[in-house]
Amino acid sequence: MAVYTEVSDEDLIDFVGAYDIGDVVSFKGIAEGVENSNYLLQTTQGPYILTLYEKRVRATDLPYFLGFMEHLAAQGIACPTPLHDREGTALRELCGRPAAIITFLEGMWPRRIQPHHCAELGTALARLHIAGTTFDLHRKNDLSVEDWRPLYDSCVPGAHDVDPGLCAIVGPEIDYLEANWPTGLPSGVCHADLFPDNVFFLGDKLSGMIDFYFACNDFFAYDLGICLNAWCFERDGSFNVTKARLMLSNYRKVRAFSDAELRALPLLARGSAVRFLLTRLYDWLNHPEGALVKPKNPLEYLGILQFHQQVNSPTAYGLD
Amino acid sequence: MAVYTEVSDEDLIDFVGAYDIGDVVSFKGIAEGVENSNYLLQTTQGPYILTLYEKRVRATDLPYFLGFMEHLAAQGIACPTPLHDREGTALRELCGRPAAIITFLEGMWPRRIQPHHCAELGTALARLHIAGTTFDLHRKNDLSVEDWRPLYDSCVPGAHDVDPGLCAIVGPEIDYLEANWPTGLPSGVCHADLFPDNVFFLGDKLSGMIDFYFACNDFFAYDLGICLNAWCFERDGSFNVTKARLMLSNYRKVRAFSDAELRALPLLARGSAVRFLLTRLYDWLNHPEGALVKPKNPLEYLGILQFHQQVNSPTAYGLD
Repeated sequence: MAVYTEVSDEDLIDFVGAYDIGDVVSFKGIAEGVENSNYLLQTTQGPYILTLYEKRVRATDLPYFLGFMEHLAAQGIACPTPLHDREGTALRELCGRPAAIITFLEGMWPRRIQPHHCAELGTALARLHIAGTTFDLHRKNDLSVEDWRPLYDSCVPGAHDVDPGLCAIVGPEIDYLEANWPTGLPSGVCHADLFPDNVFFLGDKLSGMIDFYFACNDFFAYDLGICLNAWCFERDGSFNVTKARLMLSNYRKVRAFSDAELRALPLLARGSAVRFLLTRLYDWLNHPEGALVKPKNPLEYLGILQFHQQVNSPTAYGLD
Repeated sequence: MAVYTEVSDEDLIDFVGAYDIGDVVSFKGIAEGVENSNYLLQTTQGPYILTLYEKRVRATDLPYFLGFMEHLAAQGIACPTPLHDREGTALRELCGRPAAIITFLEGMWPRRIQPHHCAELGTALARLHIAGTTFDLHRKNDLSVEDWRPLYDSCVPGAHDVDPGLCAIVGPEIDYLEANWPTGLPSGVCHADLFPDNVFFLGDKLSGMIDFYFACNDFFAYDLGICLNAWCFERDGSFNVTKARLMLSNYRKVRAFSDAELRALPLLARGSAVRFLLTRLYDWLNHPEGALVKPKNPLEYLGILQFHQQVNSPTAYGLD
């Protein structure tokens, strides 16, 4: 839930006036998204999303994110795309912040994940990975294996209060991941944050993906590890192998796995668990008093990590 | 900013299915409104607002609030109205809470108040007061003069930390208001919370009023006192007499003031200042750690109270 920047009606009307999208008829802050300020903008031509990029998003990364959305849309992937103003500019400025108007994507994110959602997701993620292979820009994943130790070190002083056993698990795990992280796997542009609230459905059909503000170049199989963790664990922490099998088998129908990718999947899923455990732990320990965003529980990801630690082969994910 | 109740997509589709408004295509929490959970619901027939009434709103008051909105709309006052489902029911239940789907009102609330906004507001408020005279239900104002002392008493222990001089001003003021509160002034249904974020404009024209969840029967002039305080003070605390004159003079063109109302206006404006000072002070002292709503500064209303304390006649508000 987040609206960080209050936009005045006059500033808004000036801003919208640079586009050919009609007159503003409504403008409401959306209580979703953690990193940016998002508004639902209705004009006489329909609904749009206005996003102001707050300080957690690096302005120099925005051409990559917006460019990737445009690239995907041009390849037929359902996702929002930034509008261009009359001078052709997509990334502008409003209230002192980088800002863009984005097309409105129909659909709702699934609050209760069902197997068919995971099947649709697998197909969509594979298509996204293939569509990204012709995208020219490159952005390093700045939340990957070499970034975890400094993040972990900064959390150690407070980690014991969150869970007394946390450091004894996560410290050695980072050692292990650093020593065994794979190289040379198939890679390209990953969404890298494809949680259920970033995937919209209309009825049973996936209608699109949103929120490309963690997109980066990394192993495709790492992106799958993120999705395994975000979509295939139940609220009680148990792993749903039916969901995993549907996700992975539908993915591989569109983009085949290499043997090396398959073998690496358990380790990459562990890495993904550590990545979200650490950023949630950091936010948990550092969220300012009175902040409007409720931090997510890092311990959910401790359980996910421990599940993958005991996985020896991708058969545990329902694959043969 | 508030979304307190998370509605699942399945519950939503069941709920919307009871109405003849087409299929759901989008559903987003709105970061506005403090008391309730508000969602912007898009269906194949257009936009609507879905409201879940949270515990600060008494369920037994809802027929009054929703009935008043319907009554106003039937009288030609621009405001949202609750939809009726196929069985004719407007007030239903969702996720264990009273809930209603409300029509979508175009317009934006003015972030920077200008004199012409106040002129429009005066006209609209007078029309609202007149339209309410034929509304049959009655609801006592439960934040009026007799409710302030217990609220004040509960805040005294923490008030000094908010402002060391607060109690020395507010305590005697409540004594004074209790002793001098008028009786017998023209009364009827008041909005009682007509702040700028509850009044929408399209261009220069007022397009409607929202959020009737404090509506109650009270003196019409008290409602004007609330609007004077909410619309006619600048951010630096100074009183803008041009705005006040435009608001009041446009009001009286539609509904004439009695002499008694005019004389009582400074006192009623003081009372309104105390009412919002106290509820803000209470929320300031009692907002839970980690709450998603940022409490408003009570001291803004201390300055407003002190302004009205030195007013002797309504000429100070630009009236002759």
